[in-house]
Amino acid sequence: MTDKKIVARKLQGFWELPPEKQVIFEAMLDKIKEVFQKHCFLPLDTPAMELAEVLLAKSGGDIDKEIYRFTKGSTDACLRYDLTVPLARYVAMNENTLSFPFKRYQIGKVYRGERPQKGRLREFYQCDADIIGDGELSLVNDAECVKLYKDIFQNLNLPVQTEISNRKVLFGLVSGLGAGEQFSNIAICLDKLDKIGEENVKESLQQLNLNESQIAKLISLVKLNGNSSVLQQAEKLSSNQTFLQGLNELKQIDEYLQAFGLSESDYKFNFSVIRGHNYYTGTVFEAYLAGNRGAGAVGGGGRYDDLAGYFTQRKLPGVGMSIGMSRLFDIIQQSADEKIEFCKCAVIPMGETINQCLHLVSLLQQKGISAEVYGENKSFKSKLKEANKRGVPFVAIIGENEVKEGKITLKDMASSSQQSVTKEELINLLR
Amino acid sequence: MTDKKIVARKLQGFWELPPEKQVIFEAMLDKIKEVFQKHCFLPLDTPAMELAEVLLAKSGGDIDKEIYRFTKGSTDACLRYDLTVPLARYVAMNENTLSFPFKRYQIGKVYRGERPQKGRLREFYQCDADIIGDGELSLVNDAECVKLYKDIFQNLNLPVQTEISNRKVLFGLVSGLGAGEQFSNIAICLDKLDKIGEENVKESLQQLNLNESQIAKLISLVKLNGNSSVLQQAEKLSSNQTFLQGLNELKQIDEYLQAFGLSESDYKFNFSVIRGHNYYTGTVFEAYLAGNRGAGAVGGGGRYDDLAGYFTQRKLPGVGMSIGMSRLFDIIQQSADEKIEFCKCAVIPMGETINQCLHLVSLLQQKGISAEVYGENKSFKSKLKEANKRGVPFVAIIGENEVKEGKITLKDMASSSQQSVTKEELINLLR
Repeated sequence: MTDKKIVARKLQGFWELPPEKQVIFEAMLDKIKEVFQKHCFLPLDTPAMELAEVLLAKSGGDIDKEIYRFTKGSTDACLRYDLTVPLARYVAMNENTLSFPFKRYQIGKVYRGERPQKGRLREFYQCDADIIGDGELSLVNDAECVKLYKDIFQNLNLPVQTEISNRKVLFGLVSGLGAGEQFSNIAICLDKLDKIGEENVKESLQQLNLNESQIAKLISLVKLNGNSSVLQQAEKLSSNQTFLQGLNELKQIDEYLQAFGLSESDYKFNFSVIRGHNYYTGTVFEAYLAGNRGAGAVGGGGRYDDLAGYFTQRKLPGVGMSIGMSRLFDIIQQSADEKIEFCKCAVIPMGETINQCLHLVSLLQQKGISAEVYGENKSFKSKLKEANKRGVPFVAIIGENEVKEGKITLKDMASSSQQSVTKEELINLLR
Repeated sequence: MTDKKIVARKLQGFWELPPEKQVIFEAMLDKIKEVFQKHCFLPLDTPAMELAEVLLAKSGGDIDKEIYRFTKGSTDACLRYDLTVPLARYVAMNENTLSFPFKRYQIGKVYRGERPQKGRLREFYQCDADIIGDGELSLVNDAECVKLYKDIFQNLNLPVQTEISNRKVLFGLVSGLGAGEQFSNIAICLDKLDKIGEENVKESLQQLNLNESQIAKLISLVKLNGNSSVLQQAEKLSSNQTFLQGLNELKQIDEYLQAFGLSESDYKFNFSVIRGHNYYTGTVFEAYLAGNRGAGAVGGGGRYDDLAGYFTQRKLPGVGMSIGMSRLFDIIQQSADEKIEFCKCAVIPMGETINQCLHLVSLLQQKGISAEVYGENKSFKSKLKEANKRGVPFVAIIGENEVKEGKITLKDMASSSQQSVTKEELINLLR
């Protein structure tokens, strides 16, 4: 071995939690997966890399500077930058064997080689669930995505309210006003309502050469938000067919959500929800923590017409929801106890009792209790200190007296109280 | 959208299971993690990439042709090819804040850009658990690794027997025979005993200029295998101090394993277990399926003196076990039912009863039963066929009659029998 040491460094902006936080993260993942599984979504685990021609199909081969791309031998590959392109590739590859509607969830890391800054990482987790239809897809699925937010966040003890709109409503209104060609620009302006306020939005709409009556209608629409009744109120704004179709879709989703048992606290309609992505063609939604809209959306998604148009002639409409994992984890770790229990009971020998300790640890684990022995050649005192530092709630002590009496001393680390117990009593106390 | 389609292809040799197999794989992962957690191992999730200078520290910067390496901006990075170098980097980076012994497990994908062939992938899962000490580390931890095999494979309903040796035993014997400088070559020859047989091994030892008495001793050692009694038998072969130290360590581990409650069916000693890796310095072990040694080792590991010598002056001895995930998964999917139940109950409307179906699905999910509605605009018959194809065991049918009577028709797909039940009865039957 050389004496010259390499400095142990991690790549900046890459995901790595200390183990005590990783424990919290994994518990969060498990609770999310549990809900997807109850909803019969199938897991998918695609490679971290895709062929460059596949990953860049959408952009016609133009490489985005954020994408990690490299060649090895004759392989020209990129690291995935989202989970949607891999899904499209997967469904197109397997379109003849998959059962539709195909419901999949995927939780995995994606890569974007931008300069790291607070809240923007080069490697981070995405969590997506999508339902893909073959040719057509019922609005029941859009409602199911909204239900997923409710159930997942309920399972995390963080109630959310999902805010729902439909791109057809805004597009129909704009078209009805004779400004259809300006749709993208108008959508961009209106999307800023929350951030820059009504007056500034009006000003930027004027710059798009919209007149006062047009602007008034647009503003009336995006200010509408609330329960089912806003769908009736919106009806008065336009008689455009696309507009009315969008409203009818929302009414249908409202009915489905009520059938699912969701209430007004779980969702509302909000026409200022626009979602930047151009591929959304119908329902769009964003989920916000109940009573903490200011923390920003913790999830979003919507309906698209064509998942895999770059790969296949087959029309594959879909609806998908995603969860902002980094933001969600920030919220969860703030509310979690600083010391998450990864070990229920440390077993510490006093004197030559290591074998008795190993026997006990084995027994506790068999009974489903997480346990470990502190078997290093260190003082009893330093081991007790270690258990305290690690946040272990209970310590079982076996000394030579305990062995003679067939008992164990159980120390409750929170109260510092001790009691002498049998193995059976110990198991009952710890369970 | 363009009419020219890109062929949807996956990179060859990269890991991707069809969802129905992924369900089995995830269930396997959960059972493995459950045992690590019960043993109080902490999860670690390091980045897929490391700085090239860090990843190549061991080789002094020489790049192995298997490694995926690339630059982006000023970053020179590689994809990880195992989970050990990232562990060494992590522990060295955090040596002043970690609690030792540091017990971590990691299950993640690693990357090796070799030509893919049967059983060799470019992207595959590794599963490692290691215990790292600060300066020293008790043999209790070596025993715990052997216990992990027992508990993990028991949880997977695949009993294993772990075969244990100690590199000091062979090294001591070879040194005592005056052939210490030839140790690596001798180890390579002896490691082939299983494959090429005793006669061929003898021949290759002769080519190393060993005499008949030396060869006889070596062969006697590596043919020794069985329970504790072989440790006594081995004692007669040499009085070399390192040799005897190795045997004493094995005796100590034997005692710890018995204290843990492991029996002869769970482990044995086998001096032909050598493990190629030069970094193993003490205990080495390999796990084999009970009654199916021919399937090859499903795991292996051992003790090393110095985890992170390339990064830090601090001596960090460790012991680690790994599981061969691809081989294990092959075995598990062969024994698993072809159709794993990812959906307990499909709910199918007959007529205009979609809302009642959504209500029922929601209720079932609340009760912990995985369920989904078949809500697409397709015939009842085709939906029943679909449920059958997907391997769903139960179908709940709600028609207009059922709505009137407040009942549900439950169809058992295996027997094709039907019965009319209330919601409460349905929940009880499905649970």
